Amino acid sequence: MHLSQEQIDDFNEQGWLFLPELFDAGEVALLKREAEAIYAQQRPEVWREKNGAPRTAFAAHTYNEAFRLLGAHPRLIRPVERIFGERLYMHQFKINAKAAFTGEVWQWHQDYGTWKRDDGMPEPKAMNISVFLDEVMPINGPLLLVPRSHLAGDLEATHDVETTSYPLWTLDNETVTRLVAQGGIVAPTGKPGGVLMFHGNLVHGSAGNITPYPRRIVYLTLNAVSNFIRTPTRPSFIAHRDFAPIEPVADDALGRMAQGFQAAAE
Amino acid sequence: MHLSQEQIDDFNEQGWLFLPELFDAGEVALLKREAEAIYAQQRPEVWREKNGAPRTAFAAHTYNEAFRLLGAHPRLIRPVERIFGERLYMHQFKINAKAAFTGEVWQWHQDYGTWKRDDGMPEPKAMNISVFLDEVMPINGPLLLVPRSHLAGDLEATHDVETTSYPLWTLDNETVTRLVAQGGIVAPTGKPGGVLMFHGNLVHGSAGNITPYPRRIVYLTLNAVSNFIRTPTRPSFIAHRDFAPIEPVADDALGRMAQGFQAAAE
Repeated sequence: MHLSQEQIDDFNEQGWLFLPELFDAGEVALLKREAEAIYAQQRPEVWREKNGAPRTAFAAHTYNEAFRLLGAHPRLIRPVERIFGERLYMHQFKINAKAAFTGEVWQWHQDYGTWKRDDGMPEPKAMNISVFLDEVMPINGPLLLVPRSHLAGDLEATHDVETTSYPLWTLDNETVTRLVAQGGIVAPTGKPGGVLMFHGNLVHGSAGNITPYPRRIVYLTLNAVSNFIRTPTRPSFIAHRDFAPIEPVADDALGRMAQGFQAAAE
Repeated sequence: MHLSQEQIDDFNEQGWLFLPELFDAGEVALLKREAEAIYAQQRPEVWREKNGAPRTAFAAHTYNEAFRLLGAHPRLIRPVERIFGERLYMHQFKINAKAAFTGEVWQWHQDYGTWKRDDGMPEPKAMNISVFLDEVMPINGPLLLVPRSHLAGDLEATHDVETTSYPLWTLDNETVTRLVAQGGIVAPTGKPGGVLMFHGNLVHGSAGNITPYPRRIVYLTLNAVSNFIRTPTRPSFIAHRDFAPIEPVADDALGRMAQGFQAAAE
């Protein structure tokens, strides 16, 4: 998996890049099954909506083998190494559920706003990568991105601790209106296995999901090693303290694990 | 405005019909301006979201001239008369805001569920008509319809008085999942002036709107005169008691009013 210069230019200009079906059906099926097993667990890394449905599971790469392989997957690590020109460590890893019928809103925000304020990250030299486990459709709460908003830099934000169960530094409506007037809104959709990369300062949010279609997405935040966080305040399962560079696994490691599970089941 | 036999067959089979740009830009501009003036009023017909933003304004056809003309517009009245084979009266008339940033969810429901239980309407022989005042996009909380679900008849429902400020007889997740497995979900979108008709038993809902794009829609519920409500329990501005057949106005009545306003402004 190598990004072309055109893809890199596009990312730098628009602030996001979508790579359809980067993982195949077998790899995705394994990850979905493992995600459900994790959501069923009662553990501090698993956060829930106000009604009890799973909202996000943190740090699954530290306690689940399939997600460990995903978190060190060369199809994700190599392109980001190329963009940043250095090696990476995992700043955050989560599986967001956006459950059928009950998935709640994520208000408009920049992720770097939180990484800077709460974690002491020096620069927005960390990349968000979302791996679709379900088909993302216009109707089941896709991520909404404001193209080119990453060029606005780090914007003023307010700590929202009320709207949902997850505290977030969110932007005011005037700022979002201004940026949307310039860049519009895109909602990248696609089949399971698709991968969306976006800049740490790209403004994004998502509406609730009232449909029967779940919309599970794995988020990796890959930080440049030199950009390690200086003054963390959040638990280490949310903002990791292991700054050692990620050694990518083999490209077929996840696929082989999936085949192994399948063979065992037959 | 006449529906073709093909359109009528399609409506009977799918439970909905979309007529793009039935009203022109001048007509829509007039209605938008009048809607905002109504939302700004403090009156019992104007209901608000929990945060104070307008959610819906009832019965505007009884106290606003532009909406009076819309409520008797031949482009809306004639097609429904044709489908039901008799004359119509206005059962309900409302302007739903789904305001930018704050528009909240409408849970999955059938409108006839409420008309029957709360108003004593004998049969689902009333038509929902929605007139788009803004562009309806996939991202600003479009109406989500479950095609063919009207064929399931009147389904069991629960009175939801908690989720939003508006009490509604809503369906359970198992029922919605079953119907969506059969019919899928469609989200008709289109420019201002488009008109969506759907059957009183068609299952529908809508997610919240977190975008800066408002999504105002006028809803007319046109009931067959013979199907007048027998045991109303809701205020008369929500479930009307004037069962006299609607006399359609001239096709250009709304357009002429819009031109008059424009001429006066120049």
